[in-house]
Parts: sequence; structure tokens; C-alpha cells
Amino acid sequence: MEAFASIATALRPGGYVWTDEVRARCQEYADRYVADRCAEHFGETEEALAATDFLTASVRGGKFLRSAFALTGWACGRELGPAAVRAAASLELLHCFALAQDDVMDGSAVRRGRPALHERWAQWHRDRELSGSAVRFGESAAVLMGDLYLVWAEQMFRESGLDAETLSRGWPHYDAMRTELAAGQLSDLVNDAQLEPRWEAVLDVARRKSGNYTVRRPLELGAALAGCPAPVSTSLGRYGLLVGEAFQLRDDVLGVFGHPARTGKPVGEDLRDHKATSITVLARDLATPAQLNELRALAKLGALDDTEIAAWQELIVATGALERIEEMILDRTTAAVDVAESAPVPGHARDSLVVLATECGRRDR
Amino acid sequence: MEAFASIATALRPGGYVWTDEVRARCQEYADRYVADRCAEHFGETEEALAATDFLTASVRGGKFLRSAFALTGWACGRELGPAAVRAAASLELLHCFALAQDDVMDGSAVRRGRPALHERWAQWHRDRELSGSAVRFGESAAVLMGDLYLVWAEQMFRESGLDAETLSRGWPHYDAMRTELAAGQLSDLVNDAQLEPRWEAVLDVARRKSGNYTVRRPLELGAALAGCPAPVSTSLGRYGLLVGEAFQLRDDVLGVFGHPARTGKPVGEDLRDHKATSITVLARDLATPAQLNELRALAKLGALDDTEIAAWQELIVATGALERIEEMILDRTTAAVDVAESAPVPGHARDSLVVLATECGRRDR
Repeated sequence: MEAFASIATALRPGGYVWTDEVRARCQEYADRYVADRCAEHFGETEEALAATDFLTASVRGGKFLRSAFALTGWACGRELGPAAVRAAASLELLHCFALAQDDVMDGSAVRRGRPALHERWAQWHRDRELSGSAVRFGESAAVLMGDLYLVWAEQMFRESGLDAETLSRGWPHYDAMRTELAAGQLSDLVNDAQLEPRWEAVLDVARRKSGNYTVRRPLELGAALAGCPAPVSTSLGRYGLLVGEAFQLRDDVLGVFGHPARTGKPVGEDLRDHKATSITVLARDLATPAQLNELRALAKLGALDDTEIAAWQELIVATGALERIEEMILDRTTAAVDVAESAPVPGHARDSLVVLATECGRRDR
Repeated sequence: MEAFASIATALRPGGYVWTDEVRARCQEYADRYVADRCAEHFGETEEALAATDFLTASVRGGKFLRSAFALTGWACGRELGPAAVRAAASLELLHCFALAQDDVMDGSAVRRGRPALHERWAQWHRDRELSGSAVRFGESAAVLMGDLYLVWAEQMFRESGLDAETLSRGWPHYDAMRTELAAGQLSDLVNDAQLEPRWEAVLDVARRKSGNYTVRRPLELGAALAGCPAPVSTSLGRYGLLVGEAFQLRDDVLGVFGHPARTGKPVGEDLRDHKATSITVLARDLATPAQLNELRALAKLGALDDTEIAAWQELIVATGALERIEEMILDRTTAAVDVAESAPVPGHARDSLVVLATECGRRDR
């Protein structure tokens, strides 16, 4: 048992659950778990050494939002301890799975300011002058890295140190979260393959895929593990739905307007990828006939240069879509804070809920 | 609790563990589990209906070898019952995961005599005249179907009805099997990307990826769940290594010479895909200089017609590689039967081991 006094002392009454120290501990646990699995299973072949390198590097630099929500859910019913922190940190590996495979499917080259996993593997293929397509090899290898993260996430959760009875309360939420994640990504692919997807469909995916998976499910998982009573779960469910939507709407704004130095992704990446997101679909719905023609012309272009990205950004602002999305984010954040403030939970958990809701709506990365 | 008398009565002393009836029950459990998860999680969107259709169809028609080995391992220590059969059947979902993603990576269009999952999704995209690449959409959707199978496999295993103590003996084997599977597939990709991979490297992947995953790990998993003592595990480990290799060598022979009506795959598929397998690599190593030139000329061709496939097949026979691989299969099967006959296990488990070893070496599908 490692010393954990630091986390206990960080949890002063009225303090926040999600301190920098708890976050650092989550990162440390996730790092160590991946490094240990690599050491256990990978030999000395060239590809094994590369896999170890890529898998351990890619687990770093995340926002750890899912861990934060899971631990906050837990804090609604029980004291923090190393097992709970480890269980929460395992969600970061689940997120690494989602990122590895989403980046392949979306063709996103950059993640957390570094080459995406499939780009790293493609480069590895090129450096060795192997036969066949380096791009295809990179994509296949990245999918396999995703599989390993998915397997290790569940294993880390199961081996967190939470006792069997505690875990058994969490499994239904854990399982639902994983299935929703894959099913949501499928709906996302389908929306991207529609020439002009409907606003309701895009909002539904935002809610089910990203919102639930980032906020609501981790919160509910933490609360269920801690054995929180039904009124707490009900409040957290309402809060989670609102904050999850705010999170995804902000994500969509950042996908168009985010700063590369903060997001770790190219400017206007969602426009470059022709992704159907809340803001791009709303811009189309709000556009005047003249603006709609301009939007459709941009949507038909293949590779976009920075001037075209800037023009597209201005056009979206001109339709009023940015302003409307910002209102929606603010509405949801405000409502979530109201729910948190009247939730029947301990003071430090309530404070965490308020802080996290605000962060999800305001964040720039 | 469903009636399970039929399985119990099928297990006469001296009878085989792996009867047609037990096999049918495994298929039924796997089918039902997938159908239940689809009903639980998927709504009425078009893609949800298609996912339900494709996921339930793809779970049918397998050989259920992994279930057979897991149940035989279990029978080395305990009586069969519905929970053990359900746990064993969950391995079929793990296999569906591997097939869905391997077929994408290998570009294999046909599986079990039907279009592979990525082909079905690509067709679904074409039928709806969606935008973007149908091939790419199909591949992404098939990877997601694989993810769902991977998640549901573990969930079905955990929910099999085996008690927590029994399960806890199985997890280390279960986890090792999943990680080995993904790591082995990575090595497989690397071998395929070598212009002329080494025989030892190909044999090593055959052992770790397919052999361990199909035979040894399921056997050890079953025996560990049943609480078998160390001498039993040692015997099963030796047996599993031999039968696993025989299985994979036979698989490689079928990949070149198998009959489409039996394998459910195109004739000479591994040649068409330029896959590096034991038989193709051995043929190169055994070839005369003239034969080597011919082999290299064929390896450089893009799409192969049936005449070229037939010429390649004849050339492989002429090098003596087929004969040598058949000897290797027979050696391993014979040695495995010897191990089984002296293994300290109940008679019906021993008989099953003998039958399954022979089947793995002789099978034509």
C-alpha cells in the first residue's frame, strides 16, 4: 500500500475533490499501468519496443476529465482512497482507446500536439522501408493499440483494489459506457457520411457519444461504486446531461475556432475534415440563401488552406451560429450549477461539481 | 435457470466433452447474448438496425474450437454445467472481434462464406448513396463492430454465472490471452510488411497468435477456472503448444490449398493477399534457384487470376513445402496425443483431448 496521506489531506472540508495532486496521481497510475503491461507482455522485437514507446507516450497529456467526474461521483458517497483513484484513472485508458481509433477513422494526424498513433506507426514503417502501404500499416497498428488500451482499461478498473461488492455496483454503468461509446462513434460516422445531416441527429450523437461518455457515465459510475442513494444519482444524471452537452458544444466550437497551441490540434480541424458538428450544422440551418451557397462551396473543396479556413470561420460567425452555440453552452452550464447547488451531496463534492461544470463550458483545450 | 439435463446426460463416462449438443448450446448462448445486447443498447436508427443484423449474423457458423478447448480444460477438473458452457461460449465473441478487425487489416472480403463485416457496411453505405468513401466507411464500422464484440466477450464471460472465486482464477489467463492476441496481430502485420520474412519469425507468430489463442490459452483458462492442480496444467500446456502449432500449420495449408465450399473463403486466399505464412515462407526456403525466381515473379503480381493461383500452388508442392508441413502437422498431432494419453485427467476429458488434437490437424475448414 503506497502512502496516500497527501490525497487525504488535500481533501479539506469545502476543498475540491479534483486537486492538481489527485490529477497527478491519476496520471501516474495510468502511466505505470501501461508501462507494467508492456513490460509483462512485450518482448524485445523491434515492433514490441515501438509499441511500448508509443503506448506509454500516448497516455500522457490528457485533460483527465473522465477521471475527475468519476472521482467526484465517488466523493458524493465515500472518502477518496488509492483504489478509487486507480479505478477513476482507468477511464483515461478507455479514452486512449477511443482517441486511437477515432483518429484513424477521422484521418486526424495530430493529437495532444504530437503525431497521432497511426502517424507514428506509418513513420515507423517508412523508416524501415517495409513493403506495402505505410499509411495502411499505420492505421492497422493504431487500431491494435486501441484494442490494447480497451483491454487494459477494463483490467485496470477490475484490478483497482476496489472490493468485489463495490465493483459489482459499477459494472452495469461501466459496460453501458463502453457500448455507448462504440455505438455513438458509429452514429458519428453515419452523420459525417450524410451530405447534410440534421441538427437533431448531430445533437443526439453529441449527447450520447461525447456527453454521456465524458461526463454523465463517469459521474454515475463513481456514484454507483460509492453506493450513493437514488436521489443523488438522479441529481447527478440531470447535471451530467447538461454538462455533457456543454462539453461537446464547447468541443465543437474549439474544433472550428480553437487555438492550436492550446488544443494540440490544427486550427479549424473539423472544417478541414468536413466533420458534421453542432456548429457547422447550425451555421447551415441559420444561413441566408447567399451564405448557404458560400458554405456549400467551401464544403465541396478538398484540401483547405488557411485563408479558406479563415473565410469559413468568418462565415460561421456571420450566420450567428457561434453566438447561438455560446448561449446554449451558458444555458446548460448555468442550469447544471443550479442542479449541483441543490444536490444532496457533501460540500466538497458539490463544490467540485460547480467548478467542473464551469471548466467544461469555458475550457480552451 | 434453464433445463440443462441434456448436457449432463450427454456426458457419459468415457464420452466426449465436446458433443454436438454442447456445441449447439454454445452457439445458442453466444447468439442470445449478442441479440440481448443489441436489444438493450441499439435504438431504431437505420444504422442501429443494420448493426443488430450484422452483429447477430456474424456470430454464426464458427467452428467453436476455442469453446471446445475451454470446456475440455474445465472438464479436467469439474463437471460441466450451464455457467461453464456460457463462459466457454464467450470466447466465440472474442473470436468474432479478432475476425472483424483481421479481415479489415488483411482486406479479406469473405468470411464464413459470407461477405466480411466491412464489406457489408460498405454495401450499406453504397445502397444509401452516402457521401465519402464506402470502403473507408465499411472498414471503420467493422472496427467498431469488433470493439463491441471485444467488450461483450468480456462482459459475457464475467456474467456467465461462474462465482467470483472461480472467475478470479481465470482472469490472469483471460487477460493474457487478449493482450497476446492483439500483440500477435501486430507481429503478423510486421511480418507481412517484410519483403521476405524469416521462417522462425513466421513460426513464432503462428505459435503466439493463433496457436496460443486458439488452443493453449482456452485450455489453460478452462483448467484454471476448474481449479486443476499444477500437473494437469503442465500437461495441458505441452499439449496446447503442440496442437496450437498443428492448428496454425493446417490453417496455412488451407489458406493456399483449401476448398472454398469448406473454408468459406476464396481459393488460394493467402496467395492473393500475399500473406507471409509458414507454407509460403518454407516454399521459398526450400526452392531451387529456378523455383525461387518463379516464386518471386508471382509474388510481384498484383491481382492474381485462377490460372496463376494454380501455378503458384503447383510450385509450392514442387518445392516439397507442402509435404514438409504435413509431416510437421503429423509429428505435432502424434506427440500431442501421447501427452493427452498420459495426462492425469478424467477419461472423458482425455478422450476429448485426443479427438480435438486429431481434428485440429486433419480439418478441412
